[in-house]
Amino acid sequence: MLRPQVAPMGWNSWDCYGAAVTEKEVRQNAEFMATNLKKYGWEYIVVDIQWYEPGATNHEYRPFADLCMDEYGRLLPAPNRFPSAADGKGFAPLADYVHSLGLKFGIHIMRGIPRQAVHRNCPVLGTDKTARDAARFNSICVWNPDMYGAKANDAGQAYYDSIFQLYAQWGVDYIKCDDICRELPHEEEELLMISRALENCGRGMILSLSPGPALLEKAELYKQVANMWRITDDFWDDWKLLYAMFERAEKWSIHAGAGHYPDADMLPIGPIRQDYDKNNRTAFTEDEQITMMTLWSIMRSPLIIGGEMTGFDEFTMNLITNERILRMHRNSRNARQVFRRCSGGNEFVVWTAGDCEGGAYIAVFNAGSESGQIAFSMEELELNGQDHNATELWSGESAEFRESISAEVPAHGAKVFYIAN
Amino acid sequence: MLRPQVAPMGWNSWDCYGAAVTEKEVRQNAEFMATNLKKYGWEYIVVDIQWYEPGATNHEYRPFADLCMDEYGRLLPAPNRFPSAADGKGFAPLADYVHSLGLKFGIHIMRGIPRQAVHRNCPVLGTDKTARDAARFNSICVWNPDMYGAKANDAGQAYYDSIFQLYAQWGVDYIKCDDICRELPHEEEELLMISRALENCGRGMILSLSPGPALLEKAELYKQVANMWRITDDFWDDWKLLYAMFERAEKWSIHAGAGHYPDADMLPIGPIRQDYDKNNRTAFTEDEQITMMTLWSIMRSPLIIGGEMTGFDEFTMNLITNERILRMHRNSRNARQVFRRCSGGNEFVVWTAGDCEGGAYIAVFNAGSESGQIAFSMEELELNGQDHNATELWSGESAEFRESISAEVPAHGAKVFYIAN
Amino acid sequence: MLRPQVAPMGWNSWDCYGAAVTEKEVRQNAEFMATNLKKYGWEYIVVDIQWYEPGATNHEYRPFADLCMDEYGRLLPAPNRFPSAADGKGFAPLADYVHSLGLKFGIHIMRGIPRQAVHRNCPVLGTDKTARDAARFNSICVWNPDMYGAKANDAGQAYYDSIFQLYAQWGVDYIKCDDICRELPHEEEELLMISRALENCGRGMILSLSPGPALLEKAELYKQVANMWRITDDFWDDWKLLYAMFERAEKWSIHAGAGHYPDADMLPIGPIRQDYDKNNRTAFTEDEQITMMTLWSIMRSPLIIGGEMTGFDEFTMNLITNERILRMHRNSRNARQVFRRCSGGNEFVVWTAGDCEGGAYIAVFNAGSESGQIAFSMEELELNGQDHNATELWSGESAEFRESISAEVPAHGAKVFYIAN
Amino acid sequence: MLRPQVAPMGWNSWDCYGAAVTEKEVRQNAEFMATNLKKYGWEYIVVDIQWYEPGATNHEYRPFADLCMDEYGRLLPAPNRFPSAADGKGFAPLADYVHSLGLKFGIHIMRGIPRQAVHRNCPVLGTDKTARDAARFNSICVWNPDMYGAKANDAGQAYYDSIFQLYAQWGVDYIKCDDICRELPHEEEELLMISRALENCGRGMILSLSPGPALLEKAELYKQVANMWRITDDFWDDWKLLYAMFERAEKWSIHAGAGHYPDADMLPIGPIRQDYDKNNRTAFTEDEQITMMTLWSIMRSPLIIGGEMTGFDEFTMNLITNERILRMHRNSRNARQVFRRCSGGNEFVVWTAGDCEGGAYIAVFNAGSESGQIAFSMEELELNGQDHNATELWSGESAEFRESISAEVPAHGAKVFYIAN
Repeated sequence: MLRPQVAPMGWNSWDCYGAAVTEKEVRQNAEFMATNLKKYGWEYIVVDIQWYEPGATNHEYRPFADLCMDEYGRLLPAPNRFPSAADGKGFAPLADYVHSLGLKFGIHIMRGIPRQAVHRNCPVLGTDKTARDAARFNSICVWNPDMYGAKANDAGQAYYDSIFQLYAQWGVDYIKCDDICRELPHEEEELLMISRALENCGRGMILSLSPGPALLEKAELYKQVANMWRITDDFWDDWKLLYAMFERAEKWSIHAGAGHYPDADMLPIGPIRQDYDKNNRTAFTEDEQITMMTLWSIMRSPLIIGGEMTGFDEFTMNLITNERILRMHRNSRNARQVFRRCSGGNEFVVWTAGDCEGGAYIAVFNAGSESGQIAFSMEELELNGQDHNATELWSGESAEFRESISAEVPAHGAKVFYIAN
Repeated sequence: MLRPQVAPMGWNSWDCYGAAVTEKEVRQNAEFMATNLKKYGWEYIVVDIQWYEPGATNHEYRPFADLCMDEYGRLLPAPNRFPSAADGKGFAPLADYVHSLGLKFGIHIMRGIPRQAVHRNCPVLGTDKTARDAARFNSICVWNPDMYGAKANDAGQAYYDSIFQLYAQWGVDYIKCDDICRELPHEEEELLMISRALENCGRGMILSLSPGPALLEKAELYKQVANMWRITDDFWDDWKLLYAMFERAEKWSIHAGAGHYPDADMLPIGPIRQDYDKNNRTAFTEDEQITMMTLWSIMRSPLIIGGEMTGFDEFTMNLITNERILRMHRNSRNARQVFRRCSGGNEFVVWTAGDCEGGAYIAVFNAGSESGQIAFSMEELELNGQDHNATELWSGESAEFRESISAEVPAHGAKVFYIAN
Repeated sequence: MLRPQVAPMGWNSWDCYGAAVTEKEVRQNAEFMATNLKKYGWEYIVVDIQWYEPGATNHEYRPFADLCMDEYGRLLPAPNRFPSAADGKGFAPLADYVHSLGLKFGIHIMRGIPRQAVHRNCPVLGTDKTARDAARFNSICVWNPDMYGAKANDAGQAYYDSIFQLYAQWGVDYIKCDDICRELPHEEEELLMISRALENCGRGMILSLSPGPALLEKAELYKQVANMWRITDDFWDDWKLLYAMFERAEKWSIHAGAGHYPDADMLPIGPIRQDYDKNNRTAFTEDEQITMMTLWSIMRSPLIIGGEMTGFDEFTMNLITNERILRMHRNSRNARQVFRRCSGGNEFVVWTAGDCEGGAYIAVFNAGSESGQIAFSMEELELNGQDHNATELWSGESAEFRESISAEVPAHGAKVFYIAN
Repeated sequence: MLRPQVAPMGWNSWDCYGAAVTEKEVRQNAEFMATNLKKYGWEYIVVDIQWYEPGATNHEYRPFADLCMDEYGRLLPAPNRFPSAADGKGFAPLADYVHSLGLKFGIHIMRGIPRQAVHRNCPVLGTDKTARDAARFNSICVWNPDMYGAKANDAGQAYYDSIFQLYAQWGVDYIKCDDICRELPHEEEELLMISRALENCGRGMILSLSPGPALLEKAELYKQVANMWRITDDFWDDWKLLYAMFERAEKWSIHAGAGHYPDADMLPIGPIRQDYDKNNRTAFTEDEQITMMTLWSIMRSPLIIGGEMTGFDEFTMNLITNERILRMHRNSRNARQVFRRCSGGNEFVVWTAGDCEGGAYIAVFNAGSESGQIAFSMEELELNGQDHNATELWSGESAEFRESISAEVPAHGAKVFYIAN
């Protein structure tokens, strides 16, 4: 299994294009990333759900739509949406292009085997079995109509092997597997088949599990087979969801590190929901976006941009290219919530983390609806012995703390300090 | 809605032939019933599940098997199993034959629309819709692979209308609809569509709901749309299941009458499970069969024979042709459990019921594993004013009770007394 | 065990005087009953909770109040409230007086042994045990501060024996035991001790269990040890509570009869809550009171008046002295809900019952907020063979029904018809 | 609130003497600690439950026993067990003696106010209220008979103030408050009253909450009011309980530090349960004790010895005086479980922690029933940049790790390595 030392950073097509993204849009974002973001560590370009559905137009799924599929029941990119995939070339040309830009290429898959393959009774590549042998007739996804779950038998494993073999041929670097994480433990056997197929395919790929919320009691399993797993249901630009993430992040904080990362989901920033209206922009305030980026970074969540990057404004570009923040995302260790308490009518949440060089990060979030001042002792952070010259990472301003830390934080906003060793 | 004054009495193919019954077997049972049982009130001949599956061989379902179906996605009897159904005649010839014997004809259906129709995108008869418009992609039966649930929309209603129209053409008298009763309330809308389709098809049919256990809190709904509904999961020849029926029967007793009957399921008597071995016979003792027949009759459950009738022995024939017992089944009113208590190491259950003529039934069950004597006062039954000359219905023997009733009842057995007005 | 053929009818002090009733008030209600109601069947006069608490002033309990108690830890009537109880005479003089009026006398008790007796370490009469041996330190009532639960040991049984011996000496006819019914099965052993103490005390007494809701799965136990048990938490003059009683009554209907009666609680009619304000009257409308009296009577609930009877107006007197209704209460058999359905914007509930003479009762309740018409077929009641000349019991008016029954029923009101054999 | 930088270390009387410890036993353990253990950091001597019960003889509680109490309902040490407490001196002489040895003194209390004080209606010191005003009649402990819970009112607060004032006069340094932690949130108001009483009493005391399991969702509350709280029900010398502690420790690990410590309960080592038999010794194997001491130390649990220290053998003395282990207990920071996995038939659990000097601890537990070898990469611990010369802390032996760590660990045993910065 790959063990990336930094939680994956990239872009995913879902927030802006739903099930309907096209090759043109993927390419323009890849080009933008290569030009503007690669130098900051951003590297994955991920095509999300239903790239095999010729008629997808937005975030909805058309039940029982005819899907692009090869004779072995393996789904293929719809050539009307991904022209380079014509003539059975699949995602190989697009992956090649992304690689040519110095980036990496990822795709979304659903757990299981296409219902269409099952009802057509397709053979499973390299076996004398068929899709009907591999499918579980009573295992379905409740929100997507495409697949049956796969049986934990030879046919099921062979089908998974056949698709990972294809993805390896295409040059895929990253698999976001869906309908696999919240449903555990029921789908545990299926997750193990996927893991084996990945190990056997001959190409290293990041494995990302979805949707959440993942099950805390299954953390050790996720850590053994996956690089990232969603700790939340779909995250969108809504303060209630961001507020709820503090608790999720706290619970999962001890499980980040060494190649496996609890995943707080994509960053819905800039132009999103472009399939519905080109004027759509994130509903998060700037302070909320700073809160999000601070929490994701200190907890070492994967950072996956959800917006159409070619439309990013200056604020958004600064948000994702602040070198001090991205350094925290790389170097944070043992991050955890220190306390959460009400003070002066606001609710404050404080996190700390160390880094590899003996420094300390202190993030202060104001979850209240008014700007407010918080103060607390260094003793509460057990940072008594540290040098107290701090830098606020978003602004770059210096601060000096002696026995206590004090900060003014805007409503729904955050500040984060670094104290070097 | 039909309101049969007596709970339906008949035969069903499941217990002896599972999903694999053939026309020959149906005919031989119909002929046996016409000759031997019709005069006692037995009248329905019901073909159970998967008559449309050419390859069915026993009680198991083959996932994703190819089913016999017309161009409108309506399932048809498999001609290899039902030769008279060839050339699109469906069950009409078989129904005609059953009618010619003076009996009535019933079939089993699954809730929903065939997955095969959906993936082939069949048109819905008389509409510009297709099966894909009618199906719910995430509504399936957990134990049978054939169907998707139907949406509560015009296409869904039209599909149900189209099948009931077909069944009316065939001359069907009785529909056993499966996967509809335990799943309520989720499938409540689908049940209402079925009810409307039945009302609109122009032919009166009994509607039987399955599987159980039905939901007690939905009793008023069942009473408004159905004639019978299963109060239990599949019932088989196992004392534990029969023992558990006392409690189910007690709870549902107030809902029997006026054309709607809580259904304790089929009577697994005589030769059953014939698809596995022709030597298979019910595992119930004779006393257990008497207990079953007594409880089903006093509570007015439908009486649906499950065994191969041509193989019935004398005991079994007597069990189902005792005129005193069948009279109780017809005339019982306000049946209920009076008490259930332990006495002398056994557990006794006592039921009473009235009849239309002012008489009273008193059933005494011994649920213990030893033969035992029970005695209790007439006062406990509130029968103080009744004439105390009683007849035991199974034996026909007279008994005289004054202030108390006393009876010796064998282990797992029953006695039932009638006191005329 | 006593087996009264008619569910108990009487008066209880709770609704009007809470924990604070005095001898004067009990006597005036007893005298009123003897003069005006005895001839209709009303006979019990019951003193409710905390007659042993000198300082009780209303429906609240004073925690840790000093209670009147004998040397054996047996509670005694507070002489300041019950002057005839002075000099250790207990309730004997009051019981004698009630008996002299031709009525019967009842008292309320709490499950267990007084905490005061335990902390004073009183001896248990006739044993070498003390209250500390009899008490369970961790069994308390959550809403009343007086008692500890009793252990199921010799000391516990001896304590219960000692109090029932005292009550027998006093001439008590009726025990309402509280904190014993909802808590089952945890307190099941304690209920059995109470039952044994009652059986052994040498005097027949009605045993009434409280509070509810009783547990349906314990019905057989209640029937074996008690004459009545509360199927609801405290019932008051609130339509929501009356509305909820339809469902409770339906569930419990099969358990009424032969000396044991599910109890829908007292009738809060006329002047109630007199401890707070002498002007307080029931908040029920007249139609709601008719609904209540009809439902309680057809289901054979005990009828226990809760209001100060000397203040009853003409409507209230008619409500409780309608001979046709009271005859139904005596003679109803096999009562049950036939259906409950919405019609014309209202919700109608229909009950039927038989009687000992082959007649039939049909009660029609309008649970909706508008007066409305309901019609349904005789077939639905399975009364096809009955004579169809009916009498409406509240009004005494005649009605003729042929194939269907039709009635106009006011909002929250009821009509009830009798069809003689 | 006190914020001890090291989790409390001491001795408690429960494991060896239950509710029956005497002054003699307390003194002999204090003397032993002063002589032999003080130099290693051990300092608290804590008298556990029911020091006010003259008749306590073992781990059981006598229901409704007469307790030693002053006129204000404040419990006092039973002079027959604690002679120096005679003449109302309370624990002051014993506390003085413990202080004279250079140690600190603690006592156990139950949440609430004595039932005996309530039923005697004692005045609350310095108020015109009585115990009856302060007590909640329906709040009791389910396993101990002594107390009622206190109301969150002036009387309740005054009672708590009065006892903390007394404890401050005695010179108490440590309060173990029982019946307060598992019951949250129901008892949350009572915990806040206790916290206020402690803050107001004028003497700094450690506050320890019991019993567990504490509620994870209340962690922020515990951190604000207490120094330690039990994360488990009573812990004893049983492998199943020790095994279960891995999961509890993992969940709570992020909440240790800055004066507040999740508490894995006392160490049942050496002679325990001395009230039943003087020959009783811990049932833990030596390896299990090493596992316990390693886990408690790396997670920074309080270390409270449960055995009779004067009877400790050489192994036990080494267990609690290993300077390398105790240094880890003092210096561990950000401890957490890295993984838990099966390998070679055994289940291994690995924890890491940092320390203030940039070093790293790595604890390897073998939860399996066979001795076994485990190996894993440094990368998994994210210790890539560390110096790899390690010391195993129990043995003091050196080890050299390059890219991976490998260790042979006995069944139920542990090894723990330190890698300096």
